[in-house]
Amino acid sequence: MSRLKLYFDLMSQPSRAVWIFLKATGIPFEEKPVALRKGEHQTEEFAKINPFQLVPVIDDGGFVLYESLSICKYLAKSRNLADHWYPSELKHRARIESYLQWHCLMVRLFASQVFRIQVIEPRAMNKPVDRQRLAKYENILSVVLDSFETVWLKDTPYICSNEISIADVACICELMQVYAVDYPLWEDRPKLEAWSKRVRERLNPHYDQANFMVDKVRNHFLASKI
Amino acid sequence: MSRLKLYFDLMSQPSRAVWIFLKATGIPFEEKPVALRKGEHQTEEFAKINPFQLVPVIDDGGFVLYESLSICKYLAKSRNLADHWYPSELKHRARIESYLQWHCLMVRLFASQVFRIQVIEPRAMNKPVDRQRLAKYENILSVVLDSFETVWLKDTPYICSNEISIADVACICELMQVYAVDYPLWEDRPKLEAWSKRVRERLNPHYDQANFMVDKVRNHFLASKI
Repeated sequence: MSRLKLYFDLMSQPSRAVWIFLKATGIPFEEKPVALRKGEHQTEEFAKINPFQLVPVIDDGGFVLYESLSICKYLAKSRNLADHWYPSELKHRARIESYLQWHCLMVRLFASQVFRIQVIEPRAMNKPVDRQRLAKYENILSVVLDSFETVWLKDTPYICSNEISIADVACICELMQVYAVDYPLWEDRPKLEAWSKRVRERLNPHYDQANFMVDKVRNHFLASKI
Repeated sequence: MSRLKLYFDLMSQPSRAVWIFLKATGIPFEEKPVALRKGEHQTEEFAKINPFQLVPVIDDGGFVLYESLSICKYLAKSRNLADHWYPSELKHRARIESYLQWHCLMVRLFASQVFRIQVIEPRAMNKPVDRQRLAKYENILSVVLDSFETVWLKDTPYICSNEISIADVACICELMQVYAVDYPLWEDRPKLEAWSKRVRERLNPHYDQANFMVDKVRNHFLASKI
């Protein structure tokens, strides 16, 4: 059987989520780096793998799949991983699914916007940061993070769970985007801070390995502000 | 056993998706209308049911669940529905999941924005439609719909399937938002048009019943342009 292939770039937060998930669960895979900065995702060759020309993508013996969460769910079941990664019990799974849907249009969307306005847009358009738009999205993200603590971490050490799941991996990887631009993630959010440390420890050494790119962006961002 | 309760408003597109799904699959439920226009979702009482104060929500004998897609997935499995609604086979399900993740940040996000800029924002802020923002989002939605045809409907009459699934129900309900504001959904998109008719027929009479609100908004929108 041909080996599982992962097309990814650790600059992309959903790529980091899938890479960390594969490493933490011990699933063997072949690394197929796609350098976004070099436009390797925009080639005709890559469009044959993913018509949306985005990473991550897996190729599992000819079965090609894109979108990070569907990749994690498929791997959890096809590799018979420990149940906590993507629970079988209907109500438990439903809560994780409920979080993941909320996640896409809340954590992912607004964390991406805060990063985008400060890093991607100024570079792409050679313009200063749009402070008014930034303030708007930072305020929304603040409400989102408060809800994350009070709703999804209300009674459990992980998202709706006593053990780690794909929801925690997806969430922490999105939050690292705004850590890179020095957003005060943990200010007045002790539950979020404790959860972040717990998830990081649970996923290390793979978490820190994947996040070296985040640290690089963060250091560059902080240096540019001096 | 207490009966399944659905908190909903047919003005909300995810509410319409769950309502149509319940009717089309014959799952008995008690209707708990929540009138968004009257602010019934903003009461303290409703916040006890859903801390995000959004619809739809189900209460299944004390098990409360929000977020439309997780509700459909949970019901498909807990009621042992016909497999096509949410397939069991791993790769088939993975493709549906892949679509659903793409859907949230593409179809749902951009169709909502096009509707919002033309209906919700002018009313809430008592300002004319922001034509520049509208054109931007209409252009993105056009690309999204082209991809919908060429990728997700590439080889199958329904989304990645030979039979209808929760993906089709979710998608058609979001698209009805832009139908309400006369967006040229079907212009030069024969596959999308044929798919829409197919899904509507498959879900009728429930589809038309739920969409009377869409028609009402559309008629009002068209009249305001004369």
